[in-house]
Amino acid sequence: MAQPALSRRNLIHLVGKAGGVAAAYHTMAAMGLLAVPSAYAGPPALPPGRGRRLVIIGAGIAGMVLAYELRKFGYAPLVLEARTRPGGRNWSLRGGDTVIETGSTQRVVWDQDEHLYFNPGPARLPYHHEGILAYCRTLGVPLEVLCNDNRGALMQDDHAFDGAAQLNRRVVNDARGYVAELAAKAVNKDLLAQPVSADDKERLRAFLREFGALDKDLAYHGSSRAGWAEPPDAAHAGGPYQPLDLRQILASDFWRGPMQFGEFSTMAATMLQPVGGMGRIGHAFGRALRGVVTYEAVVTQLRRTEAGTRIAWKHAGTGAEHRIDAPFVVVTIPFPALRDVDTDFAPATRAAMASVDYVPAGKVAFQTSRRFWELDQQIYGGISWTSRDATQIWYPSGGLQRAKGILVGAYIWSDDLGNAFAAKPLSQRLGDSLGDVAHLHPEAPRWLGQGVSVAWKNIPYTRSGWAEWRSEARATQFPLLLKGDGPYLFAGEHMSFITGWQEGAVRSAHKVLGDIAERMG
Amino acid sequence: MAQPALSRRNLIHLVGKAGGVAAAYHTMAAMGLLAVPSAYAGPPALPPGRGRRLVIIGAGIAGMVLAYELRKFGYAPLVLEARTRPGGRNWSLRGGDTVIETGSTQRVVWDQDEHLYFNPGPARLPYHHEGILAYCRTLGVPLEVLCNDNRGALMQDDHAFDGAAQLNRRVVNDARGYVAELAAKAVNKDLLAQPVSADDKERLRAFLREFGALDKDLAYHGSSRAGWAEPPDAAHAGGPYQPLDLRQILASDFWRGPMQFGEFSTMAATMLQPVGGMGRIGHAFGRALRGVVTYEAVVTQLRRTEAGTRIAWKHAGTGAEHRIDAPFVVVTIPFPALRDVDTDFAPATRAAMASVDYVPAGKVAFQTSRRFWELDQQIYGGISWTSRDATQIWYPSGGLQRAKGILVGAYIWSDDLGNAFAAKPLSQRLGDSLGDVAHLHPEAPRWLGQGVSVAWKNIPYTRSGWAEWRSEARATQFPLLLKGDGPYLFAGEHMSFITGWQEGAVRSAHKVLGDIAERMG
Repeated sequence: MAQPALSRRNLIHLVGKAGGVAAAYHTMAAMGLLAVPSAYAGPPALPPGRGRRLVIIGAGIAGMVLAYELRKFGYAPLVLEARTRPGGRNWSLRGGDTVIETGSTQRVVWDQDEHLYFNPGPARLPYHHEGILAYCRTLGVPLEVLCNDNRGALMQDDHAFDGAAQLNRRVVNDARGYVAELAAKAVNKDLLAQPVSADDKERLRAFLREFGALDKDLAYHGSSRAGWAEPPDAAHAGGPYQPLDLRQILASDFWRGPMQFGEFSTMAATMLQPVGGMGRIGHAFGRALRGVVTYEAVVTQLRRTEAGTRIAWKHAGTGAEHRIDAPFVVVTIPFPALRDVDTDFAPATRAAMASVDYVPAGKVAFQTSRRFWELDQQIYGGISWTSRDATQIWYPSGGLQRAKGILVGAYIWSDDLGNAFAAKPLSQRLGDSLGDVAHLHPEAPRWLGQGVSVAWKNIPYTRSGWAEWRSEARATQFPLLLKGDGPYLFAGEHMSFITGWQEGAVRSAHKVLGDIAERMG
Repeated sequence: MAQPALSRRNLIHLVGKAGGVAAAYHTMAAMGLLAVPSAYAGPPALPPGRGRRLVIIGAGIAGMVLAYELRKFGYAPLVLEARTRPGGRNWSLRGGDTVIETGSTQRVVWDQDEHLYFNPGPARLPYHHEGILAYCRTLGVPLEVLCNDNRGALMQDDHAFDGAAQLNRRVVNDARGYVAELAAKAVNKDLLAQPVSADDKERLRAFLREFGALDKDLAYHGSSRAGWAEPPDAAHAGGPYQPLDLRQILASDFWRGPMQFGEFSTMAATMLQPVGGMGRIGHAFGRALRGVVTYEAVVTQLRRTEAGTRIAWKHAGTGAEHRIDAPFVVVTIPFPALRDVDTDFAPATRAAMASVDYVPAGKVAFQTSRRFWELDQQIYGGISWTSRDATQIWYPSGGLQRAKGILVGAYIWSDDLGNAFAAKPLSQRLGDSLGDVAHLHPEAPRWLGQGVSVAWKNIPYTRSGWAEWRSEARATQFPLLLKGDGPYLFAGEHMSFITGWQEGAVRSAHKVLGDIAERMG
């Protein structure tokens, strides 16, 4: 641990051009020594509610955060929820549940056990999503660590390695070695932006050696980081793998995402999950808001009135029609689902809503009678990637080593694949997923039980996976929606810069609470 | 996801010298397309035991694996264990437990709750340690994911960044960006081993851009992978950090291990742990071996006899002395603890035992009345690194978001620090650890309750952390011990190529089972 002396030269200038960071952030330079970014503010305080009624459409995360906070300050929020359950896309399917899509109904017949669940919607809680994590804490939803990026999982690409699945640890660490080796060549050839002392150069070389597991000549010849072709045991030292062919790695799409996956801000460790499924959060909110959420309340019409707005809704069970007046209403349901509601939004609002892209996400899950990924391939949680339609295969991070499991056999989110997935008959979705899974796990078909699929595009009252804003729409249309449209305020993941995450819904709800405070103040 | 055409040139040759891998592994090249290494064989089958008595010294993992397997095949193993509990270094401390070192006794007064435990010994189960994982499965020890390498944790070095702690995600991803930028310079300057087509070069550049989050000019100017100085929320896109100064990263020791930590073979995700502490494994074995393990049996003498060996032991409670004859005995206790036993090992055996280095590992843990690392710094599990004596700070991966926690305030394993730690009075160990923790977590002292320390060097019947073989001793002395010494067979982590891990103990036990099968066969 000796500390070699380092010359005072600023090595940052040796590698890159100085000052490439946007001027807007120059003032943040002083923050470079801070260990943590600005603290999470939490929900805003509100003026006393004095029992005032507020109407919220949708008992997803955004709607329930709104109701939860409003009630804390003495308001009387009313949440209208079309479904029979709270949570919206926050949802864990279990044996006995039903999946209703437009045109199909699936009855889940899996075994009943705490670890046998499937999250068709969100399934991850990044450690820095402090809003949703704080609600888990407040509501007493136990969390556990989820493995997201698993060095023991697989990457498969039909265009590389003859289509054979490769170990994540080999792809990642062999690539890392090759990159370090290239970087060392640049150092050796003095490609730094300015001349450096021999000492500095040597330290940079030593750093690259560690970075990439290079040998003393700064070449990469494989490393135990990639695992072992022959693992060590009691009497044998073990033998490393031959490094993977860089040409094959480059021919694959592994480097377009899978290889850096665990470094992405929202994908990095520590990743968390509620014990027993993401739906535990929705249900905890639902329990806390008993009497506040009206279920089976399908909103049919929104109209401006002199006093604000009139909301018409129909009970999905009885068909009874209701009307409520409110000074304003917070609409939290995704815009694609709003198309089924007769509204009098302003044309500019409608245009702004139409400018958001929605991801046609879909997933497939199977109950399995054997956790073959753990037993046969040493895969505990995490994700395997395939260039085939299934895109991702998820292994459960809960119920480890139990007899049975729920395997996510496809997680699809690209436009083309997602739309095609939604259009497929249920049996074809399962068959296609099974085929892709079997390419990575040839033994899988023996152990797969009932499969269940969810194409969010076809799920009533949601009709979409999540929002994605193209930069132009974000710049021009989003601010408009953020202001609201007369008596209509909008909240949800789509109304945030953290789209596709429950945290976006929480932060959006907090933002709208601030707007309500202003209107009430 | 379009696949640009790639020329047939083998790019592996462009970067490195061809064929740098040891000739011994050339024959493994064919394995390059295999997704998983050779399967775990499991314990060997034994000839029928017919009630034959076998004596094993030590109820650590190796000793209990031996007994468990022997009994399966009809043998009558007898395990002599000096302590009152099974497990050896497999040990979880809880409120009510006692730590006895030579010269000191600590009574643990922590609250009693499943998540409030401290593993003074092993605390991790790598996903590919199939032997120990298989026993967890067989014995019904529930496992959960442990976060080992946490992008939200800290790295601190007194020689860099003015000694201020840095976020793991910033250090790791900024370094990655700089390395990719250097590598891109090598590509641009045609430092590849042979000329390449413009297409290949472009694909290599695109790969490096993704690898390091470079901009289109292949320069690194920071990335959201490092996190956000201003995190995004509902109405704001968020602002990235200024990249860290490479000179400071190089001045630190971060790159000598901490930055690559999660890529090391035995440290990579998925990391697992028993729910409720590592000691759950030892206790599960202990329950399974009720009647097979004799506790408080302190072996005092080993002597060769005509029939094999005579083992003398004393009951630690009653002082009663006992003798057992056996055709041979498996000694599983660490060699430093064997020094307290009067043996007649051959001089060559003694010399071989003395050639092993033992790591003087030590840890400190505190009960805390607030999980400040989670609440204030968004750290859920994982490890922070410091250049100060504490070396590592561990945050629990279990009991997330509960009110209290057990924080590992120091994990020390280097020779100098470990020996010094063992020599310190208990109060100084705690005070020093607290000081180091407070440097990373200034608020810590408010919340820390009772601290407990364990210096393995001072723990009777163990007297050491774990074995490390220098290469010469491994080549010349280890094979000797592996063969055994007449009636004496040796097992344990030290008798494996997986030293310092419970898996080493398991594999060593399996190896010795094979030897027993041979002797019995």
